[in-house]
This record gives sequence, structure tokens and C-alpha cells, in this order.
Amino acid sequence: MNWIDLSGPKSEYVLSSRIRLARNLSDTPFPNRMSPEQADGVVSQVEGAVGKLTQPMRFIRLSDVADLDRDVLSEQQVISHEFAQAEGLGALACDEEQVCGIMINEEDHLRIQAILPGLQLDEAYAAASALDDGLEKEMKYAYDGRWGYLTSCPTNVGTGMRASVMLHLPGLEMTKNITGVLETATKIGLAVRGMFGEGSRLHGAIYQVSNQVSLGHSETEVIQTVKTVAEQIVEQERRVRDALQKSNPLWFADRIWRGVGALSSARIMRLKEFMQLISRLRLGAAMEVLPGISVKSVDRLMVEGQPGHIGKGISEDERNARDGLDVARANYMREKLKDNLSLM
Amino acid sequence: MNWIDLSGPKSEYVLSSRIRLARNLSDTPFPNRMSPEQADGVVSQVEGAVGKLTQPMRFIRLSDVADLDRDVLSEQQVISHEFAQAEGLGALACDEEQVCGIMINEEDHLRIQAILPGLQLDEAYAAASALDDGLEKEMKYAYDGRWGYLTSCPTNVGTGMRASVMLHLPGLEMTKNITGVLETATKIGLAVRGMFGEGSRLHGAIYQVSNQVSLGHSETEVIQTVKTVAEQIVEQERRVRDALQKSNPLWFADRIWRGVGALSSARIMRLKEFMQLISRLRLGAAMEVLPGISVKSVDRLMVEGQPGHIGKGISEDERNARDGLDVARANYMREKLKDNLSLM
Repeated sequence: MNWIDLSGPKSEYVLSSRIRLARNLSDTPFPNRMSPEQADGVVSQVEGAVGKLTQPMRFIRLSDVADLDRDVLSEQQVISHEFAQAEGLGALACDEEQVCGIMINEEDHLRIQAILPGLQLDEAYAAASALDDGLEKEMKYAYDGRWGYLTSCPTNVGTGMRASVMLHLPGLEMTKNITGVLETATKIGLAVRGMFGEGSRLHGAIYQVSNQVSLGHSETEVIQTVKTVAEQIVEQERRVRDALQKSNPLWFADRIWRGVGALSSARIMRLKEFMQLISRLRLGAAMEVLPGISVKSVDRLMVEGQPGHIGKGISEDERNARDGLDVARANYMREKLKDNLSLM
Repeated sequence: MNWIDLSGPKSEYVLSSRIRLARNLSDTPFPNRMSPEQADGVVSQVEGAVGKLTQPMRFIRLSDVADLDRDVLSEQQVISHEFAQAEGLGALACDEEQVCGIMINEEDHLRIQAILPGLQLDEAYAAASALDDGLEKEMKYAYDGRWGYLTSCPTNVGTGMRASVMLHLPGLEMTKNITGVLETATKIGLAVRGMFGEGSRLHGAIYQVSNQVSLGHSETEVIQTVKTVAEQIVEQERRVRDALQKSNPLWFADRIWRGVGALSSARIMRLKEFMQLISRLRLGAAMEVLPGISVKSVDRLMVEGQPGHIGKGISEDERNARDGLDVARANYMREKLKDNLSLM
């Protein structure tokens, strides 16, 4: 049970809250300049430190994780998309609940993260910070009295922290208010990205809002800013959803149900369309148009419909067949929604 | 049981075959010039003649038929769209099976028609002709040795006959071959129209092909021409359907099933979209993509989804509500398709 299945505050609008801390060891060159031996040394050092934590964590070398499993982990946001693709001597640690995790030898020696369902940035920070403190007892971080934590990329220097929330904003998208809302967030120094981080396309009305810089403001200040902006956006989304539903309930229900209809009848479904449909389903669940379908069950479907999850469920032949993943995705969704068809 | 429910030759491609004979009484001015008393006289005269036929027919004055019932009859092609809208002293007669019918005081004093499922122009002509012969024993038609039967509109002078077939051509439409095919038909003197006759829009890939003129060729010649062209178009449609399905069976099934998905999940459905979806459903039934759904059951759904049928099934308040007919249509289709949803 991780953020996907657990419910959190404002889950109707917020998929997850994530805190990520970038840390580097003081005695080793940073990842982009270190030798394979040094990389291996970092892995060993972190493995040792993780073993001494009071909270038990699994420790896995990336070379022991098959490509498809890496994609699965990335789609569950346990590791980054870039880390899933990486060659080289990476490793990862995570607790059983997949709330806390560490990527070792990603862009920095350590990327500590905590991810929780709904809007829970403070709670995620508390978890990440506790893990960070535990590790710091065993290792010496690269830290400068003036600059703070030193990192591979200058944008992370300082607190090394990125606080981000994953928002679902179908109402603001439908009413074309989304651009204005996000521009405001950008103006006060926040970054807006697609679901899978930097450069990822915006599908399914899912937007990741996070701080751009980590220098000059304390962790608490940054978290407060991201939280406040997220709450404001959520409030705007809430109002728009209510207005849409109230002004024409049948039109609203029609859009939602047609999404269900397509998801439960298609024989081929590309990722982009899937995300659009799952977004309508999530909205329908949140607005109680779809009796018996919860927001969290839609979040699970959304993750299960990603390429890694779908690919893992089929044979290599099926994966290599024409439209293989898209056919398997359609089949999977049809099967999953079959039990709910009687609701239509 | 009429053409809608009964199966006929090539029903996968041909909805119905219809013969219509235009006749006028010699002793009365034609409808556009006759007085109300004369119109009433025509109705009485035809009623008398119908009463003497060996085959029993119901005889109904149009003034006794409510507006919604007229629309229902028009959608079942028992009467023309124009006749359903008409003010004045019209009447109609039809046999129990709704194969043969007579419109009295439409554009001509008598419009005799026979309509059969599938491609059955010869059989429809035999039925219409037998009815015509029976009536001619009791009444004197306006007939000229040189011109043949005299009619209100010069295009009907001669045999007074229009032979038409209602074709379902989704394959030719999808592959954009339809224009060429229909231009060929037009070049050899045939007319191509939408489902509900002259001026009606072409929805649901349904095309009515008929002779343009009725002078200079015998009934048999005209029927032979329409039949031959219909058979050629059907053969082209058959080849295109096979090619589409064979080249990518999953894509083909996907299109069909998504149509089912929309039909069985929408909460509002306009007529135009309904016809597009029902067309996909009909194609799926014909190509055996949809197990348990017959072409004829789709034809029934198609007729039942028309405005008159839908309107008749709901209250006046519902009809007058915002999107009333479109909501009722969506509800009706969902209900009808529910039993088949387990097939998805």
C-alpha cells in the first residue's frame, strides 16, 4: 500500500505530495565525474548506512532490476524516469510502504524522497527529513556553510529540497482556465510540469507543481509556498467542477460516462487517449457521478495502464506484436471495468 | 412484422426495397388544384375501392392520426415525411404487415407503395402491382395513351413508378470511395438521396438509390437497372468491408466496439451522432464482430431511435425539457443495449 492506494487529504484534486532531498557525500566526486569504483563505493557506503537505520529498508542494486520492473517502479514514482533508463552503478532503497525511498547515484549521490497521497507536504517532509537525519549520522554530506548542501545541478544547491504536488485539474482544463492559473504559479517562482517530471507531456489533466529553486529560503518557507499555491489551485478547481456539474448535470454525466464507455469497449488504446479517459473517470469518481468507483481505484487503474505495468503483464511476443501495448491496455481496462458495467 | 424486423436477401447491405406508383383519378382535379370537397370525394372513393380488395387493409383518415403517430409511421416508411407533416384531407391504407400501403391525397391522389426487407425489387413490384390492379378495377385512373399515367409532377408521368433501394454503405464511406460510386449511379440516370427521401441529409451511411424518371422505359426495365446498380454497389461495399476487416481486424473491431460503448454509455445523444453510431453497430452485426446482435435488431434500434419513436415514449414534460429527445434517446439505447453489455 503506497500513495496509489491510500487516501489522503483532498485526494479528489491531489494525487500525491512529494519531498525530495538531494545529498552528496563529501569524500567522493559527484556522479557526473566519479569513476565506476567510486560509484560502487557510494553504493556500499549508503547500503551500510541504510542497514543501521531504525526503520527497515530494502536495498536493491539497479543492475538486479529488469527493465520492465524499473519502468514499473518509475510509474509508481518510487524512482525517477531518468533513473529507470540509467546505465551504470545505481541502487535504490525503499521502505515496505514505498513512502520513503533513496535513489543512489542518480544525478546526486543520494536522492531521498518521501511521497504521500493527497495534500500532505508537511508529513512528507517530516518523513524525508527523519530518513535524512538517520543517514547523516552515518555519512558525511557535502555541505557548505554559506551555500548549504552542494549538488550536481546548481538549481538544487541550498536546501537540496524539491517539494511537489501532483494535481488533477480537469475542470480548469475543460473551461480553459488552466493556463492563467498555472501562469500565476510560475510567476511566483514555482515550476509546472507533466506527470512524469521535467519535459514530460501534460496528459490527463495532471500537473506537477513544485519549487524552482532551493537557495535563499528555508524548507519550511518553501513548503508553505507550494502548499498555499496548491490549496488555491485546488479551490479554483473545486469551484469550476461544481459550476460545470450544476449548470448542466446531464452534460457533465454524459462526458464522464462516455469516458467509461470508451474505456470499457475499446480494442486498441494509446497512452495519450487512455490518460484523457482516465482523467474523466477520476473526475466522475470525485464528483460521485460514478457510484461504486472511488478516486483511489481510478488512481490504481491509471498507474496500471502505464506502459511498464501493461508490458509486464503480457508475453514478449504480445509486446512485440502490432499495437501490442495498446491492445493489451484496452484488454486490461475492459476486464477491469467489466464488473462496473452494470452500473451504466 | 414489416421490413424492419423481417430479413431479406442481402440485408447486410440493403435495408429495404420499395416500389411506389403514382396514380390519379380521371374525374377529379389533381391534389394541388382540388377543393376540400373534391379531396374528401377522393378519400371516399378510395376507401370504397379498398373495401372491395381481396386483401384486407386498414383505412385511416390522417386527421385521426396524432402528430407523433404520423412521425412514427413516417419513420417506419409507411408514409412519406411530407405526408406526415401535411394539413388537409389525406388518408392512408395499409395491410397488417405494412408491406403494402396507399397514401391518399399526397402529391397525387394515390401513392401506392410496397416495401420489403433486403434487395427484393421484383417482389415489391409484384405486390404493388397487384394492389394497383385491384384498385383499378374500382376506379378510373388518369391515363393518356401517349404519356401513360398522368401525375402532379412531370417527373412521375409515364409509369408513375419509383423503384428505390435503401443501402447501408459504411465501408465505402470510411474508405472515401462513396462519392465515386454514387456519381456513377447518378450518371446512368439514378437519383441518390438520404434516408428520408428528397433533401434529407445523409447520416449513418444510408443511401437511397432510385430511378429519376418514369417516362420512356417500362417498369421491368427500370427495376432491372436499379437492381443491377444496387447489386454492383453492394458488391463494392462487400469487398471494401472484407478488406478493412482483414487488413486490421483489431482496428476494425475497435471502431465497432467503441460505437457500442458510446451508445451504451451516453446520457445525451443527438440524432446525427446516433445515426453514425448505429451505422457502426450495423456494420459490426453484419461482419459478425458483435456476437448475438443481428442486423435486423440494429434496424429496429435505428427506427426506434428516430425522433417520433423516441418522442412517443416519453411525457410531454420530458419532450419539452432541455435536450429532452436527446436525453430520452440516450436512456432508451442504454436500456436496450444493457443486456448485450456482458458481451463486451
